[in-house]
Amino acid sequence: MTDATDTSENVFTVEHRVPTAEREARNGHRGGVLWFTGLSGAGKSTLAFSLDEALFADGYHTFVLDGDNMRRGINADLGFSPAHRSENIRRVGEVAALFAASGTICISAFISPYRAHRAQARAAAGDHFHEIYVRAALETCERRDPKRLYERARAGEIANFTGIDDPYEAPDAPELVVDTDRLSVEESVRKVRAYVHREFRLT
Amino acid sequence: MTDATDTSENVFTVEHRVPTAEREARNGHRGGVLWFTGLSGAGKSTLAFSLDEALFADGYHTFVLDGDNMRRGINADLGFSPAHRSENIRRVGEVAALFAASGTICISAFISPYRAHRAQARAAAGDHFHEIYVRAALETCERRDPKRLYERARAGEIANFTGIDDPYEAPDAPELVVDTDRLSVEESVRKVRAYVHREFRLT
Repeated sequence: MTDATDTSENVFTVEHRVPTAEREARNGHRGGVLWFTGLSGAGKSTLAFSLDEALFADGYHTFVLDGDNMRRGINADLGFSPAHRSENIRRVGEVAALFAASGTICISAFISPYRAHRAQARAAAGDHFHEIYVRAALETCERRDPKRLYERARAGEIANFTGIDDPYEAPDAPELVVDTDRLSVEESVRKVRAYVHREFRLT
Repeated sequence: MTDATDTSENVFTVEHRVPTAEREARNGHRGGVLWFTGLSGAGKSTLAFSLDEALFADGYHTFVLDGDNMRRGINADLGFSPAHRSENIRRVGEVAALFAASGTICISAFISPYRAHRAQARAAAGDHFHEIYVRAALETCERRDPKRLYERARAGEIANFTGIDDPYEAPDAPELVVDTDRLSVEESVRKVRAYVHREFRLT
């Protein structure tokens, strides 16, 4: 038993955070952010969840951030105004960076149409950031239209819809491009998985 | 090679999230939130980092959320007004819940003085939430005063300081109490570590 003075001394102890490198060594792979960007309907979520399953089966520590778990939770206070969309992406970038620091491969699946927002997410995660452009022609996405969003945007029911009346700023130098116009989901997963093996494996 | 029609079909595939239980089985332990609450100077951060090291050495997947990585990142837009302190804790609770869902044991170290805020954090994480009251008498904390915050609060330089001119609402039914008035850091770590072994281990 120590007395309060000893305890007090301990409060002054420099706090030691387990370094990310040690967590990565334990996991056998680097942590990082796989930042999917692309039009609605390009296949970001489908690819994110299929990749997550594949990487988990490979032994990676992974986690997906998407509209479902972000918009219902930490971003439940945000709407879809330009300021709120910006704040939505900012927070996703910061949460993804925390997961990367914990040694996890964090897959984020958001349209994230503006270069400036993606640059901010990259700045949050630093070297851990990998921008993956999930690319499909607007016509393809509009033909797929799984959630009938393009239909509603064309009908004027949704304003500022990316690709219709709001710009999508394509990445200048993404770490990887996945063309879902011509690649199946399986082929797309294979491509990103090979990239992850190359870039993240430590063993 | 499949054509766009096949790809389009795949977009309609139900997205399958790797269940938390599968991630936990892989890790050999449950995910969860260890929510430290207590006065400034009670030893939350010191205990959080010491526990993190100990649990990491034991093979657990852990991560600490504290003022350093939250206030500089996702909560960099927040100040210390009552509304912002509330929003700060809300976001910590949501981020902690995401880490728990990923199978990680997330240790959060914030004063979090209000019961209502802690109840919100518990609601975000559900069954994964473990409230740990890091308890020390105000006099002890004020005597330690590692950051000279009590001194400044007494001098009127900091307003709404918990324990001085803002209330600390002690937990009604915390999962665990750690009395740092009488336990050393090592003894405190041992107590929480034993709790984690009991509550989180799967193997």
